[in-house]
Parts: sequence; structure tokens; C-alpha cells
Amino acid sequence: MDQVEFISGRTRIYGIVGHPIAQVRSPEMITAELFSRGRDAILIPIHILPADVETCVPQVMRIQNLDGLVFTTPFKQIACAFADELGAQALAVGAINALARRSDGRWVGDIFDGLGCVEAFRRRGHSFTGKRVMLIGAGGAGSAIGVAVAHQSPAVLRIFDIDSARAASLTEKVRRVDPRIEIICDQPNVDGIDILLNASPVGMLDDPRMPIAAETIPGNVVVFDAIVKPEETKLLRIATAGGCETIRGREMMRGQIAKIVDFFLV
Amino acid sequence: MDQVEFISGRTRIYGIVGHPIAQVRSPEMITAELFSRGRDAILIPIHILPADVETCVPQVMRIQNLDGLVFTTPFKQIACAFADELGAQALAVGAINALARRSDGRWVGDIFDGLGCVEAFRRRGHSFTGKRVMLIGAGGAGSAIGVAVAHQSPAVLRIFDIDSARAASLTEKVRRVDPRIEIICDQPNVDGIDILLNASPVGMLDDPRMPIAAETIPGNVVVFDAIVKPEETKLLRIATAGGCETIRGREMMRGQIAKIVDFFLV
Repeated sequence: MDQVEFISGRTRIYGIVGHPIAQVRSPEMITAELFSRGRDAILIPIHILPADVETCVPQVMRIQNLDGLVFTTPFKQIACAFADELGAQALAVGAINALARRSDGRWVGDIFDGLGCVEAFRRRGHSFTGKRVMLIGAGGAGSAIGVAVAHQSPAVLRIFDIDSARAASLTEKVRRVDPRIEIICDQPNVDGIDILLNASPVGMLDDPRMPIAAETIPGNVVVFDAIVKPEETKLLRIATAGGCETIRGREMMRGQIAKIVDFFLV
Repeated sequence: MDQVEFISGRTRIYGIVGHPIAQVRSPEMITAELFSRGRDAILIPIHILPADVETCVPQVMRIQNLDGLVFTTPFKQIACAFADELGAQALAVGAINALARRSDGRWVGDIFDGLGCVEAFRRRGHSFTGKRVMLIGAGGAGSAIGVAVAHQSPAVLRIFDIDSARAASLTEKVRRVDPRIEIICDQPNVDGIDILLNASPVGMLDDPRMPIAAETIPGNVVVFDAIVKPEETKLLRIATAGGCETIRGREMMRGQIAKIVDFFLV
């Protein structure tokens, strides 16, 4: 093999910045999405240490053929400082996970975790408008999901986090997005809800627990779990057995990737 | 297509730094060489402006999964400043084109243009030891070739450059490598030589000229042209017609790529 076909001197570069980096899926998935849109572009992993991020990222952004960055843990908050301008979701959440160079040289940041969840529901034919939603988890992913859902005008948003300060903080963010939404800070509770969203880490990997007693969920509730590994969490498995429609973290990830590539290619 | 196969969060990153960058061939060729050695690693184009290079490159070197850089025009000299340690070729030439992170975190630089030429000859079964060599061109590539050839103990090295100061400078470098070599600064001259090396840009792209009257080259002379485009220069075409064995710039590039990847993977 004298040369590979997928990269050359003309290839445009994107990167995902995180610490650690080996576990990220954006390189293979966003590169595939860029290819599917006919772009000569790839997304590479960029492992930057927390102590280096403030000096290193602005210089990486000086690379002329680098057109955008994705940020993952633990850099989603600090990455706001690298943007010249923030989108509506990012302003509400206080974090970004994508930063794109515009044709005028300005860098625009926004967060797509929550938009990916909304997009996953849209692809299944579901809207949040007027719905009663229970959200479990108000950390990074949960806040982004709460804000994105709030932009869709649900009737009720119940929020639970084991850290009540995080639940209170997300309540404030949601209120600023749309003061008409009825917000209830509550224990996990499925009474009278239409949609259940798990954005907590409970059930991840080998964790045998569930964020809520899945056996009690009525069959008309749509159940979403942001967890990506395993693809089908215990929560989703039991909800499916109980007759619920379920939406997986992988679908949110696909929705998010489509939205991020839209944002990169504006 | 949900994902591509050639990149993930675990992929190690190399880059080629230059200005401009679109014309470089290292991304497809070095990536192919890394793959052929079973590595999960790619080399990307990194376009850095000359005004940014001194601040940007040291920060790019802080990326933890970036293991090496290639430097091309106009950064081969300034890149020496980024190395903690320089190899023998780099010290003699005063430039580097590859910089590798060692396991102890130190960055080692060296230049492989000239070694690539020597490697191309070796792969054809030719050595420079004891030979009488005419070298045309003592710029960046010519100096690197002159120094690499000098390490092989030729008997005679004739050097020509249209800029006599460059020829004089290379003469000094060759003398420091091996004072026993007879050095002649001369017009292009094929009398009594074994090997003719063109490292000047004469004959590149649509340039119809030749660096020397190829019709006069005896059939026993091995003729090398560092020019990559066109693959067969007018010099090589006429030398071939005259019975000479010829070696192309593409072969030097392949030899160089093998040597750079050896250096990266030490």
C-alpha cells in the first residue's frame, strides 16, 4: 500500500478535545457523518491535560485547516471561554460541546447534548410540546437535556438529582428559557407523566441499579436513557417488557452528531 | 455508514506542519506506512502561518496523543528550536524535517531528505562509498543530500549551486562530516563521475530546462533527480535514452518516508 485514500494535504481537520480521550466515539462517528455529506474532512482525538487546556486550545485554534472542535469531559464549561459568540443553548446551559470557525474567522460555540435528545425523539415522531416530563439527573448531560426540552415548551418538567443544588440550578435555567413551564423538584416519580428521561449515570456499564423502579412505569410512557454503554440498560429492558416505547442513548448520540455536523458545515 | 474504521479515540496522531499545506503528500503516504506496520495512527496536515509557528507548535506538542511532527517549507530551520535533542544529520545540515516524542517525553529532531536519497540508492543496490559524485543544487534539499552522502564516504563530491555562497556553505558542512572527501566547487560537469544528483528545482513542473546537458552523460553514470513532479524529468528521460540507470524523486520520497516512520517508531 503506497497511500491511503481518506486523507491528503487538502483534508480539513476537526478534533475532539478531552481528558481522557481513548473512550470517545466522535472520531469514527463524526468522520463518517462528514464523509456521508461528501466532505474531505476528518475528526481526530486531541488529548489535552487540564493544566494545559487554557494555553493549548487557543493555539490549536490557530491551525488554519482546523475548522471546528468538539469538547468532552472535563472541558465543556471552560470551553465557553474560547468562543467569540455563544448559541442559545450554550448561554442557557453555561457549557459548550462544539466550537466552529465561521467564514469571517469568528468562533461560535454551542451545546448539542440536549438537542441530540430532542432530535432522537423527533426521529421517532415524538414532540415534547405540552407533555409532562420527568427528568432524572441534572449534571452536565441532564442540564443540557433539560434546557433543550424546555425550548420545546413542555407543560410540566419534574427534575430530580441526588444533589439538590444541581436540581435547583437546572430549575433556574429552565425558568429563564420559558417561565410558563411548571417545574417540580421531586423524587423520581412516574405518576401522570408522558415521558421519562434518565440523564443520571445510574445503570451505566456494570451498575445493576435503576434510576427509578421501572416495573411501575405505565405502558403509555416513552422512556429514554442517555446511557450509551450498555446500549440497552436495565431500565430500558424492563420498560420495554412493560409495554413502553424506549429510546436509547445511541439514538441521542446519532441525533447529536447530525446536529454538530450541521453546525460545523453552516 | 455509521462509523469509519480508520480512526477512533485510541488513534495516535502525527502531523505535517507547513505553509502552504495543500500540496503535501505525507498524509496519505506516511499514514499508509504506519498502517502497513500495524499501527493505529494517522498523519494529518497542519497548516500554520509563519507568524504563528513559534507560539503554536510548542502548544501542539503538548497534545498528549500526538507523537511526532514532520516539517516542510518554510519551517525546516526554525523547527530545530522545538527539539530537545538533534540527530547527526540535523546538526550537520542545521535543519530538521521530523520531530518525535520519546518515551521519556523528550523531543528528538532529525532530517531525512538526504537519508531518503541514500536509501533509494541502497534499495537499487548502489552505495556512495568511494564514488565520484556530482551534486547540483545546495539549497535545503541539496544540503541534506550532500550531508547524507558525505556520511557514506564518497571519494569526490563536486558541488554546484547558482548561488556560490550556498555551495560554499555546503562545502563547509561536508568538510565537518568527513574531511577526507575531496570537494570541488564547480560548474555542472560529468567528466569522470559515477553518480549525478540533481537537487536543484531546474526541470520542475513545466520547466523545460535541464540542470546539465543530459546528452553528454556517459552511460555508466547513475542519474538521480530529486524532483517529484513530473515523475520523469527531462533530465531522467534523456539519461535513460543514453543508457544510464536513473532513480526518481519518488523513490527518495519512499525511502525518506520509511526512514521517518522508523524514527517515529523507535
